[in-house]
Amino acid sequence: MQHLAIVNGPNLNLLGVREPHIYGSETFEDYLAKLRTQFPEVDIEYYQSNVEGELINFLHGCMGKKQGIILNAGAYTHTSIALADAISAINVPVVEVHVSNVLAREDFRKTSFIAAKCVGSISGLGMRGYELAARWFVGSETLPKG
Amino acid sequence: MQHLAIVNGPNLNLLGVREPHIYGSETFEDYLAKLRTQFPEVDIEYYQSNVEGELINFLHGCMGKKQGIILNAGAYTHTSIALADAISAINVPVVEVHVSNVLAREDFRKTSFIAAKCVGSISGLGMRGYELAARWFVGSETLPKG
Amino acid sequence: MQHLAIVNGPNLNLLGVREPHIYGSETFEDYLAKLRTQFPEVDIEYYQSNVEGELINFLHGCMGKKQGIILNAGAYTHTSIALADAISAINVPVVEVHVSNVLAREDFRKTSFIAAKCVGSISGLGMRGYELAARWFVGSETLPKG
Amino acid sequence: MQHLAIVNGPNLNLLGVREPHIYGSETFEDYLAKLRTQFPEVDIEYYQSNVEGELINFLHGCMGKKQGIILNAGAYTHTSIALADAISAINVPVVEVHVSNVLAREDFRKTSFIAAKCVGSISGLGMRGYELAARWFVGSETLPKG
Amino acid sequence: MQHLAIVNGPNLNLLGVREPHIYGSETFEDYLAKLRTQFPEVDIEYYQSNVEGELINFLHGCMGKKQGIILNAGAYTHTSIALADAISAINVPVVEVHVSNVLAREDFRKTSFIAAKCVGSISGLGMRGYELAARWFVGSETLPKG
Amino acid sequence: MQHLAIVNGPNLNLLGVREPHIYGSETFEDYLAKLRTQFPEVDIEYYQSNVEGELINFLHGCMGKKQGIILNAGAYTHTSIALADAISAINVPVVEVHVSNVLAREDFRKTSFIAAKCVGSISGLGMRGYELAARWFVGSETLPKG
Amino acid sequence: MQHLAIVNGPNLNLLGVREPHIYGSETFEDYLAKLRTQFPEVDIEYYQSNVEGELINFLHGCMGKKQGIILNAGAYTHTSIALADAISAINVPVVEVHVSNVLAREDFRKTSFIAAKCVGSISGLGMRGYELAARWFVGSETLPKG
Amino acid sequence: MQHLAIVNGPNLNLLGVREPHIYGSETFEDYLAKLRTQFPEVDIEYYQSNVEGELINFLHGCMGKKQGIILNAGAYTHTSIALADAISAINVPVVEVHVSNVLAREDFRKTSFIAAKCVGSISGLGMRGYELAARWFVGSETLPKG
Amino acid sequence: MQHLAIVNGPNLNLLGVREPHIYGSETFEDYLAKLRTQFPEVDIEYYQSNVEGELINFLHGCMGKKQGIILNAGAYTHTSIALADAISAINVPVVEVHVSNVLAREDFRKTSFIAAKCVGSISGLGMRGYELAARWFVGSETLPKG
Amino acid sequence: MQHLAIVNGPNLNLLGVREPHIYGSETFEDYLAKLRTQFPEVDIEYYQSNVEGELINFLHGCMGKKQGIILNAGAYTHTSIALADAISAINVPVVEVHVSNVLAREDFRKTSFIAAKCVGSISGLGMRGYELAARWFVGSETLPKG
Amino acid sequence: MQHLAIVNGPNLNLLGVREPHIYGSETFEDYLAKLRTQFPEVDIEYYQSNVEGELINFLHGCMGKKQGIILNAGAYTHTSIALADAISAINVPVVEVHVSNVLAREDFRKTSFIAAKCVGSISGLGMRGYELAARWFVGSETLPKG
Amino acid sequence: MQHLAIVNGPNLNLLGVREPHIYGSETFEDYLAKLRTQFPEVDIEYYQSNVEGELINFLHGCMGKKQGIILNAGAYTHTSIALADAISAINVPVVEVHVSNVLAREDFRKTSFIAAKCVGSISGLGMRGYELAARWFVGSETLPKG
Repeated sequence: MQHLAIVNGPNLNLLGVREPHIYGSETFEDYLAKLRTQFPEVDIEYYQSNVEGELINFLHGCMGKKQGIILNAGAYTHTSIALADAISAINVPVVEVHVSNVLAREDFRKTSFIAAKCVGSISGLGMRGYELAARWFVGSETLPKG
Repeated sequence: MQHLAIVNGPNLNLLGVREPHIYGSETFEDYLAKLRTQFPEVDIEYYQSNVEGELINFLHGCMGKKQGIILNAGAYTHTSIALADAISAINVPVVEVHVSNVLAREDFRKTSFIAAKCVGSISGLGMRGYELAARWFVGSETLPKG
Repeated sequence: MQHLAIVNGPNLNLLGVREPHIYGSETFEDYLAKLRTQFPEVDIEYYQSNVEGELINFLHGCMGKKQGIILNAGAYTHTSIALADAISAINVPVVEVHVSNVLAREDFRKTSFIAAKCVGSISGLGMRGYELAARWFVGSETLPKG
Repeated sequence: MQHLAIVNGPNLNLLGVREPHIYGSETFEDYLAKLRTQFPEVDIEYYQSNVEGELINFLHGCMGKKQGIILNAGAYTHTSIALADAISAINVPVVEVHVSNVLAREDFRKTSFIAAKCVGSISGLGMRGYELAARWFVGSETLPKG
Repeated sequence: MQHLAIVNGPNLNLLGVREPHIYGSETFEDYLAKLRTQFPEVDIEYYQSNVEGELINFLHGCMGKKQGIILNAGAYTHTSIALADAISAINVPVVEVHVSNVLAREDFRKTSFIAAKCVGSISGLGMRGYELAARWFVGSETLPKG
Repeated sequence: MQHLAIVNGPNLNLLGVREPHIYGSETFEDYLAKLRTQFPEVDIEYYQSNVEGELINFLHGCMGKKQGIILNAGAYTHTSIALADAISAINVPVVEVHVSNVLAREDFRKTSFIAAKCVGSISGLGMRGYELAARWFVGSETLPKG
Repeated sequence: MQHLAIVNGPNLNLLGVREPHIYGSETFEDYLAKLRTQFPEVDIEYYQSNVEGELINFLHGCMGKKQGIILNAGAYTHTSIALADAISAINVPVVEVHVSNVLAREDFRKTSFIAAKCVGSISGLGMRGYELAARWFVGSETLPKG
Repeated sequence: MQHLAIVNGPNLNLLGVREPHIYGSETFEDYLAKLRTQFPEVDIEYYQSNVEGELINFLHGCMGKKQGIILNAGAYTHTSIALADAISAINVPVVEVHVSNVLAREDFRKTSFIAAKCVGSISGLGMRGYELAARWFVGSETLPKG
Repeated sequence: MQHLAIVNGPNLNLLGVREPHIYGSETFEDYLAKLRTQFPEVDIEYYQSNVEGELINFLHGCMGKKQGIILNAGAYTHTSIALADAISAINVPVVEVHVSNVLAREDFRKTSFIAAKCVGSISGLGMRGYELAARWFVGSETLPKG
Repeated sequence: MQHLAIVNGPNLNLLGVREPHIYGSETFEDYLAKLRTQFPEVDIEYYQSNVEGELINFLHGCMGKKQGIILNAGAYTHTSIALADAISAINVPVVEVHVSNVLAREDFRKTSFIAAKCVGSISGLGMRGYELAARWFVGSETLPKG
Repeated sequence: MQHLAIVNGPNLNLLGVREPHIYGSETFEDYLAKLRTQFPEVDIEYYQSNVEGELINFLHGCMGKKQGIILNAGAYTHTSIALADAISAINVPVVEVHVSNVLAREDFRKTSFIAAKCVGSISGLGMRGYELAARWFVGSETLPKG
Repeated sequence: MQHLAIVNGPNLNLLGVREPHIYGSETFEDYLAKLRTQFPEVDIEYYQSNVEGELINFLHGCMGKKQGIILNAGAYTHTSIALADAISAINVPVVEVHVSNVLAREDFRKTSFIAAKCVGSISGLGMRGYELAARWFVGSETLPKG
């Protein structure tokens, strides 16, 4: 059985509540239930925190336990070298997901410390970005690292 | 009864202790007691944390409970997009306060991610900045949102 | 009796006329009458000019005559080193006021030559910013200088 | 009868005198006489000042009186946010004219605060730029605003 | 039946030939055959050109004929405003795909004129990025536009 | 008889179709017919291409055959040094036209490689910019070169 | 007896595990045991956290209790003004240590908010950097502050 | 008899009053009296204004009447392209003087629009800079222009 | 027999015609005839295009057929990442030639996307740059790549 | 008797030989003879070197021996922090002289490491700049230090 | 016996003389005598020069003769690529030392060409930085190179 | 007989010794012997120094004695305005040579003060760059100057 983690960063606990014109009105918990139904053969652990260091702690804990991580680091994408270092430090491939098209928003969202440390990224495709990332992990025969 | 929150960010627990030539020698707790006396008709909740994510958590918790927030994000003003996103996400007007005149200090304090998401800001007027912000909330007939 | 001056810079003669979605529809003269009523113990002189040098002349004339100046330099905030020098040159504390939240507008409004020379600043709180600044002057026991 | 204003900024009182290899040797007054002959159906008011604030004053005075303004702000094009704000503030369409091709000159002439607030601009076509701007106003059925 | 177009830009005719350590050794034609097998219900047109203007021509031709476009603009991603304008001009949603993780490569690949005009983007997930983009189009009930 | 060329660059074949809120809803062909009626004494050749190099080829072909060129280089204005070099290379005066006010749009449209090589430019005055440019060529006694 | 604190920031809990080609394969706990043996006359407290705010909390707690702090702030070196403010706020000299030569790595590691607030720094000398810093504290007759 | 003008810009009417630690405590009028004594063979006209446009007007008026101008443009040195254009426009050599060493002060004083248009400049040598400039004009056999 | 290609980019079809003060008055065809005489043992294919994508097509076609390419990419040197990618993609050493000394011209010619992908470059030595490049290929025993 | 040193930096041994359109055709030795005649009461030592470190050595040697130094550091003005440090290190006031108006030349001459460490500077006034600097030293009652 | 070299760059011959508030009042020769006493088992050669090229010469001469170099390049740290190249060129590990905390001083001291080529660096710890560097060389079992 | 000088700057005395993966393993003296054999009709003087000022001295000495100079300024290429000034000052054409392709290396090697002052440059073609430069001098009928 494949073990994946979905990790959501700051303010993403408000998905479905906050700014629905940008993020839609579905909560992540609702979406997650559907996602687990789509991938019955995969064990998907979910973690969310608004604290940068707790996200780092969780990533560290994935070493040796997960085959892949789907990470939406939210605003920390643009400011956290520490999180980027954590991705480099652990031996698990990470795919970055953003619900909105971050490059179509404010200029300060154009800097990413995270992206270069991930295998790849999916952005702007809504909640379905998580599904596509999961599908990529499921279908990949050999998983490259970063 | 009007409910306001005062939120202080990193190192502001040291107000009155740290660098008195910049911040004065009154502790925030002493000041707060006086402030509450000045606004007997207002319920003022006070929160301080040095942890960026805990400040975000507190802001989230203000949704639907506060009519206004007075936020001194300290150094996170200049580095935290996550905190700025939290202000955008909640439906409560925020007035930014800085005890010192941040624009008269180091260059890196001239960048603010927070300011554009707040209704407005007060800086350089010492502890009394909090009082003026409270007075603004009290006197405003209709509170605009950022 | 305390003597304050309120100084408004370029285009602020159009307050209440120009771009009401940004500045509201009250003229400054109407507002000033109310303000004077709020502070009967203060002599408030009002001056407005669209000419940078005339604003400098007025500031020079405040030396030895005013206990404080409330300055809304409008667009000269972002371009006038000469006005900033005038603030440094006179021995009167200046509080900067902006009706709108300038940091939430165009990028070129993020540069301020004025701010570092003032005691502090209030922005985004509408016309009431002038009132809060006046209140600060009235309530301050010892007035610091810049 | 249509009412237009032509407004010339700093140093343009020297047209025909100053640097003829750039600006030609015709004075603006000579040119203006010919221009009025070309547009007998239009009332063209002419104003020139070297003082930024006086130009702002004049623009304010055009509100409700002119159908269009032809503005050559000279060097203030590149430095005056106050003038740009004045254009935004008044409800009269402004067409920017430059006698020389400013983009073919020094780098500091590549910044324009004025341009984005005008309907459009004409540069490098000599004195005839004023004529083309006038012709545009005359021929336009509905005049857009900035 | 749904009609999609896959559009590949400069040098992508060499996929499978050029720099296999970055792009792998499968040619795009081989991959395309497999992709069409995966999506039998979709009509996938394929177009490749090294000429910026021909890519623009092709995009124009998609108006009214395709439900979606999968675009790998290659190096034009970073330099072509004309291509970005073409995406804005046509009324067809575009998903951007990059085979490699462009943000982990040279600095000049960090600028994208294309991204903000697309619905979203997928990068770094190898050839499978095209599959995921196709899957997104197939599964989307209502297709948003840029 | 005077020979002019009008040259339109990328995406301008969609004028009247693409983004009518920016460019209006008249096609260029319709406009051109009216323009030729306005200037019966002038032979106006029209050329449009989305391919940068074909625009260069056309400009080369104007040497010795045209008295003037009206060029709307579209997005190539901001990215094409090659096109700018072509303007320098040929001995025909070029007037640049933009339908919209490019300086009021995205930041990347503020860079122009073309402008400094042209005699002058007209922008923001809609389709009528072409008419004004033609009028300038017709009325000029001696045509300067860039 | 002298009291020192060693404070390690984000990801440094993985020393000896993470990226041994950069950081070596010794864990910090192993190293610390040896270090305490080298300095029997010194009480060395050790603290590590991945949470920026917890590091700030710990630094605050050193006031009045430690004669010196050896700080490896990891990636927060480059992003945390809050941590830099904490160093300024407490009255304890801080020596910065980095295991690797940060200036020989990515460009974003060339910015340091921490360095200017510390007494000095040691980088690139491996684990032994902590030893040298300790030796400096031990041998210093009068400890300067920042 | 040689005719020189000394032109002082904004805030220089406060020389001897304002910030004596930077500018000394002698008023310019006192200094001027001494200067005229030193150069009995020269007619020295003195002009000061805080208004940018009035300084331009005065410079225009020097054409054909002065052999040289000594200009201390104060803060307009760093912001006024209009003043720089005025220097280019008139046919009189200008020597720039600054009382303080402007390059040893704030960064924004390192930009000069004026300098490149003047013959040369003298700064940091106190009031005596005016004397040295006058001496240069007096001793020069042939006066170059800018 | 050695096979070399000389590839000339935009506007270089006008060599000998365009701007002779920069490029001389010899046409490239005349020069090429002399060059072939100088290297009778080498087969020199010549290609010129003003279209970026056609230059890429030609470079692709050199794979497996040429021992070396002499490339003067003209203005595309400074703007084309796509052309640089093509050089990386093919397995043929490329020497860059510029007729003029590009670094002594406009600032925008100081950026080169091409240079880092070539073996080396020759500039400013006139038409003879092609000869020196050819001589280098002829005399090299082992040809390095990029 | 007053002791001054004149120190000339790189390429200034060629004064009168090199680029006479910029620097004139008088050699420095000829000029120096005249200068010594003008200041018979002053002992003027002259030193020139093209070697940055030798200039530093000479400045060090002036400590305790000279009342003032006139320094034309030539191109080292713009690149040598070491020379600037030497000026700070010695306890002798330095006046900077440039023969040409450096701010009217290339952009890279606009950076000066030297200026902020000197008392003041004189530029663009030809060889006579040395005379004016000497006159300043002679006439100064109390010599300030940088 | 281990052979180390200590190399001091420009102005460091004035240590103990120059700016004692920054560098202290001990001369380097005095300090060196103490240092040699601390490391009797090490042969420490000392070299100082103000000439960049002579420092390069000395570094070249260390090849094959020294096990380590302690380099304080002074201001050349920030400006000398040639010195950095010399460190790369020789096969001897170099530890960089700065007496003061250079990152707490002027901005131009934040650029270092030297640091990335050294093994590591020690700054801000006063003269004792040399001792700590020596101690590192003495205690290192295997000396890495840059 | 033609007289050329080859001038090598800092660290080039180590050619053949230093970093052979970049520069090859042939010493310059060996190469020079071969080069002189290739050009028996030319007198080639060779000079190398690591001292910037000595290189300047040598260039000065070439005036009136050499027909051409081949200059590899090494790292001074990127930092020495003084050397660039020397090239401008002497009346001898200079061709710049770099053994490696400097534009394919670190970013700080992309700035060149030297290039714009030389006739042209050759880089990346190994030692043979000197030969090609010599050949250019030998074959040129009229030698242009910079």
